[in-house]
Amino acid sequence: MLIVQKFGGTSVGDLSRIQNVANRVAETKKAGHDVVVVVSAMSGETNKLVGYAEHFSSNPSRAEMDMLLSSGERVTASLLSIALNEMGFASVAMSGRKAGIVTDSIHTKARIEEINPDAMNSAIKEGKIIVVAGFQGVNENGDVTTLGRGGSDLSAVAIAGAIKADLCEIYTDVSGIYTTDPRIEPKAKKLDIISYDEMLELASLGAKVLQNRSVELAKKLNVNLVTRTSFSNEEGTLITKEENIMEKPLVSGIALDKDQARISLMGVADRPGIASEIFNKLAKAEVNIDMIIQNKGHDDTTNIDFTVPKGDLHDAKTVVHAFIKSGEIKDDSYNEKICKVSVVGVGMKSHAGVAAKAFSAMAAENININMISTSEIKVSMIIDEKYAELAVRSLHNAYELDK
Amino acid sequence: MLIVQKFGGTSVGDLSRIQNVANRVAETKKAGHDVVVVVSAMSGETNKLVGYAEHFSSNPSRAEMDMLLSSGERVTASLLSIALNEMGFASVAMSGRKAGIVTDSIHTKARIEEINPDAMNSAIKEGKIIVVAGFQGVNENGDVTTLGRGGSDLSAVAIAGAIKADLCEIYTDVSGIYTTDPRIEPKAKKLDIISYDEMLELASLGAKVLQNRSVELAKKLNVNLVTRTSFSNEEGTLITKEENIMEKPLVSGIALDKDQARISLMGVADRPGIASEIFNKLAKAEVNIDMIIQNKGHDDTTNIDFTVPKGDLHDAKTVVHAFIKSGEIKDDSYNEKICKVSVVGVGMKSHAGVAAKAFSAMAAENININMISTSEIKVSMIIDEKYAELAVRSLHNAYELDK
Repeated sequence: MLIVQKFGGTSVGDLSRIQNVANRVAETKKAGHDVVVVVSAMSGETNKLVGYAEHFSSNPSRAEMDMLLSSGERVTASLLSIALNEMGFASVAMSGRKAGIVTDSIHTKARIEEINPDAMNSAIKEGKIIVVAGFQGVNENGDVTTLGRGGSDLSAVAIAGAIKADLCEIYTDVSGIYTTDPRIEPKAKKLDIISYDEMLELASLGAKVLQNRSVELAKKLNVNLVTRTSFSNEEGTLITKEENIMEKPLVSGIALDKDQARISLMGVADRPGIASEIFNKLAKAEVNIDMIIQNKGHDDTTNIDFTVPKGDLHDAKTVVHAFIKSGEIKDDSYNEKICKVSVVGVGMKSHAGVAAKAFSAMAAENININMISTSEIKVSMIIDEKYAELAVRSLHNAYELDK
Repeated sequence: MLIVQKFGGTSVGDLSRIQNVANRVAETKKAGHDVVVVVSAMSGETNKLVGYAEHFSSNPSRAEMDMLLSSGERVTASLLSIALNEMGFASVAMSGRKAGIVTDSIHTKARIEEINPDAMNSAIKEGKIIVVAGFQGVNENGDVTTLGRGGSDLSAVAIAGAIKADLCEIYTDVSGIYTTDPRIEPKAKKLDIISYDEMLELASLGAKVLQNRSVELAKKLNVNLVTRTSFSNEEGTLITKEENIMEKPLVSGIALDKDQARISLMGVADRPGIASEIFNKLAKAEVNIDMIIQNKGHDDTTNIDFTVPKGDLHDAKTVVHAFIKSGEIKDDSYNEKICKVSVVGVGMKSHAGVAAKAFSAMAAENININMISTSEIKVSMIIDEKYAELAVRSLHNAYELDK
């Protein structure tokens, strides 16, 4: 097999951990596989460099930031390659440029545009282990760019797609994707396999092992993604396309998102286009809207309820207050003490009654459901924040996820 | 003027020193000059990275070492450019690659083959200050290379040549070139101007401010080199071609080299080619020969005396012992307690009696001269090591260098 292995900052956090990574990569090579390794900077390094830059400027020039920050990954890549060569495994370190990673020119937040895998393919043909500095590429002018948060994961997935790797393993300090947060429900079980779409729902709802950008890219490039830990040999979780999943579970996991605030608009003027006007203004203010409920009030007006991330609440209020001033909204109220629990599973597509079971579980605990939204593969409920953990445990139990 | 300013590791040793460098560069720009800055890694950084590599291997792969070590200069270049931009001076950081520095492929000891100054020239035309990461380039495959010890000086000189700079200033913690080592002769004076050839003689003989590679390159590219300190505004020493020096001093400086050992070969077989054979074998063993004296012994044999750096003595002995075993040399003796004092000056070319004055000065102090070698611009003498400092002071005084 051709395997891409990506090791994050904690996994390469010091010299002995880099040696551990070298040992693991060597084991994979000895087992007969070709390996391309993608590494992050040693943990703490990027923050140190950011601190240096902030010493000189509160708003450092972005092209310079990219040249600065990209050095951390180069150090790790060189060291790991040195370790592998010393162990007798022919290895070559590559910068993002050498690996052929071409991005757009949005410094510090670049997007990968294409990968020219020629250099990697010929090194693989020579039997070499490749160690790529993650998080970086070059734009069309040849200037170094970086990919922003989670950038090394993106490098790994994009490389796996470009060289048609059989597997892209993302090593972190977490052993995989769980049916829910084990800190809330100790009976949570690690999932062996999960579809891209389920992972996207779980990620956006709180399971922070992988950023959605990486999962989306894996889905687009059809890359088999595995998240696992670098601190043991425990098997991880395979994230793959739905067709590859033989036995589709009804429900794969329960996600919890506490970063939610509810905004209620009462007495919205009943004229065509008013809702679109409100949400356009909110979008312009870069407020992210999640759920929306609209219902007729007693008079000619309408009530609109929606949820936003807590951090967007201030901007949302500014927009709403303008409408109140102009008289098109009568009154508003805000509630930050809410949360969203979600039941996620591809099996829902073909099974009725999944949502009903969730509602029953909430009812059995006397938890009031404020808002509901559903998609093909998930049921989300807004409830009082104080019931968050209880709701997660009840749902986990109701769908027998500990079995 | 178009000025290249190179700052070494001590000058950029911490964040406040980098800010000082930014202030100095800004002053130069404000004075109406165009500036290209070349920086080393922050002092200690390169050693730290070498230490990391040695953790994994006693003989780390060299291409990886280059990728590893080149990161230090990239960090300094980015930070300095961030500082300059923050101060309102448009600035761009460039890696060796971006600056167009192309080298051969001898990793960790690459030689600059050519510089493509297009990117630098257009940034200069835009009025930008350029900050180049020193010590590095790329080979024809686009792999990062480093230039070895003193590499950032070489970068600066080569860049100055390529962009036809009026001046290349090398900033260190020393304020310039002195008539002799001020720790030996407190009356030593800083030289305002000195020729490339004199500097080459003084450098190889002990004045360690600039490596000979840099001076040779400056001579070849006709770059006006200035060494000065970054810790004050004191003027430094201009190193330039002899034709630019109006008043040629008889003697510019007195150099001392304690890293000398004398090898005496007694009773060398008197057959044609024997000397060539001995010195070829020594060259093959990479023993550097400095002075050589050959004279007839009492019988048919010859005595040969020569000097080598102390570090080469062991290898030299091995070669000599093989000739003794084969009977072609009768006896050998070694003396490590010697040193070489040299009087250097372009004025010697046109003045007689310079050497005689040196011999008189030695005689006046009862210092015995063991060996003598002369060139157009220098007189070197091997003497007993214990007289080293006395000899330097006497010569300094004899040529009135404190005046």
